[in-house]
Amino acid sequence: MKIGIVGYGNLGRSLRGLIERDENLNLVKIFTRRDNNSFNDDKMESIKNLLEYKDKIDVLFLSLGSATDIPEMAPEIIKNFNTVDAYDNHAHIPQYFEKMDDIARKNDKVAFVSTGWDPGLFSLNRLIAESILTKGHTNTFWGRGVSQGHSDAVRRIKGVKRAVQYTIPKEEIIENIKENSKDYKSFETHNRLCYVVCEKKDEDRIRNEIVNMEDYFKPYETEVKFISEEEFEREHTNMPHGGHVIRVGETLENNREMYKFTLELDSNPDFTASVMIAASRAVLKYVENKNYGAHTVLDTPPAYYNVLSHEELIKNYL
Amino acid sequence: MKIGIVGYGNLGRSLRGLIERDENLNLVKIFTRRDNNSFNDDKMESIKNLLEYKDKIDVLFLSLGSATDIPEMAPEIIKNFNTVDAYDNHAHIPQYFEKMDDIARKNDKVAFVSTGWDPGLFSLNRLIAESILTKGHTNTFWGRGVSQGHSDAVRRIKGVKRAVQYTIPKEEIIENIKENSKDYKSFETHNRLCYVVCEKKDEDRIRNEIVNMEDYFKPYETEVKFISEEEFEREHTNMPHGGHVIRVGETLENNREMYKFTLELDSNPDFTASVMIAASRAVLKYVENKNYGAHTVLDTPPAYYNVLSHEELIKNYL
Repeated sequence: MKIGIVGYGNLGRSLRGLIERDENLNLVKIFTRRDNNSFNDDKMESIKNLLEYKDKIDVLFLSLGSATDIPEMAPEIIKNFNTVDAYDNHAHIPQYFEKMDDIARKNDKVAFVSTGWDPGLFSLNRLIAESILTKGHTNTFWGRGVSQGHSDAVRRIKGVKRAVQYTIPKEEIIENIKENSKDYKSFETHNRLCYVVCEKKDEDRIRNEIVNMEDYFKPYETEVKFISEEEFEREHTNMPHGGHVIRVGETLENNREMYKFTLELDSNPDFTASVMIAASRAVLKYVENKNYGAHTVLDTPPAYYNVLSHEELIKNYL
Repeated sequence: MKIGIVGYGNLGRSLRGLIERDENLNLVKIFTRRDNNSFNDDKMESIKNLLEYKDKIDVLFLSLGSATDIPEMAPEIIKNFNTVDAYDNHAHIPQYFEKMDDIARKNDKVAFVSTGWDPGLFSLNRLIAESILTKGHTNTFWGRGVSQGHSDAVRRIKGVKRAVQYTIPKEEIIENIKENSKDYKSFETHNRLCYVVCEKKDEDRIRNEIVNMEDYFKPYETEVKFISEEEFEREHTNMPHGGHVIRVGETLENNREMYKFTLELDSNPDFTASVMIAASRAVLKYVENKNYGAHTVLDTPPAYYNVLSHEELIKNYL
């Protein structure tokens, strides 16, 4: 499978590393908006030349930001390439799906949209759990892990030099959820922990601004720790993450059945990239079947993610 | 959806209870080989009259034993009905699938085979986990729960009045599996615990026969406890079960990503019945699309398990 990558941030780097170690995948180019000459790397190519690769790439990974890059660029790119993206702006996914579906169908292309783990595997598990256990409560727990949005919000505060925000689920709620099954609010089930680098004199003001920030921190229990630049660099530049989707269903005679899906990730971008690569195999199957348009984890037969034949899958997995 | 059930053991009873509380489902009849007059229940019907219901039932659940009943009866039944079964004889699933697929296609019928949780959801999770994390180790842990096969084996020993065998996964291995990732043997990761009712004088011989029984118990750490008939009746007639599918994948730079799927079930038959009911919705979708033949959890789009439209699913779950 001939692969291209658009964008070269953390996710793009993980994609590259994983593609290069997979003998079934061939990385053609990485397309970037940065000046070519800034890289001493023959895999790099200017995004301006993307169309020249129209017939040389089977699947293009869009490792771009969800805020503006994907909604702006993907509807153009899908006219000429099959794509996989991890678009995660939940509120706008339905419109994004419609748009990509429409353009992809018109151009005989396939777009696998909004994959990764949330949206992605967590969505899949919420759907399956609720389809099986029709009566019950589903809760999603995120973390322990870095929330990019919350870290950005802290970094926008005046005087903050560096900052990271960890979302931490409350273990005691998870442990007892089968007994205490209900729909929890997110602020009831998570704490927030910020590590901040700043001047000593700004600490009180910054702590105050963080814990009182509406929407981001206000109803949550939030702890703010001030640390040195050295400690920050040493302890807080990795990107672990994870979480749980838990559904507790009520069946007959007061029986409860717990369905729990858990991820514990050393590297959020490595795992998201791994999910995107599995999705690219599904893209090829959709193309083979001329099933053009947009697809998601919700409508994709699981067998599509694997290179083995259906016969082998039944033998190995069922 | 008009439903029939063939067989009325524990699974059949759970199916009935869950179908009767679901407003979208209508239980037409339960077909049994027992004499009709032994039931004071107008849902009961003799299996001999099954064909009379050919056009009155959309999906027929086969809640029959996997040892002989399903392989004998299902290939006949599929000629006239769409079916869902939980056939779990792993070694024979490929041939069973082929046979059901062939007959179902010839008769424009759909068979959803080998669903439940193992085979079923556990199979699905092994497939997805290994498709995403292509490098790593997968382990399945069963329990704490009752193994029917092992309980039967103990009950065949001379002098055993009642017996139940619990399979118990070793918690310390599960807790440390991300660090100690490897392919474990089943006997390394599980203990076996038997509760037996028998005469005092037979205890030593029976314990000895159990712990030395080849294939069933021999390489495992097995504990045997002798209890009274009253205690057995009070404590050991429920059917809890569960387990984990855990894959620890290696991504880049020594990063490890853990994918873990867990079930904790008060009632094994209630949960298996719930999975079969979700599968029956998929059967209707396959029939709608004239996609006849045998299907499994591996090739079924997850959206098929749910009654909501694709648009609503994207909005609610992605």
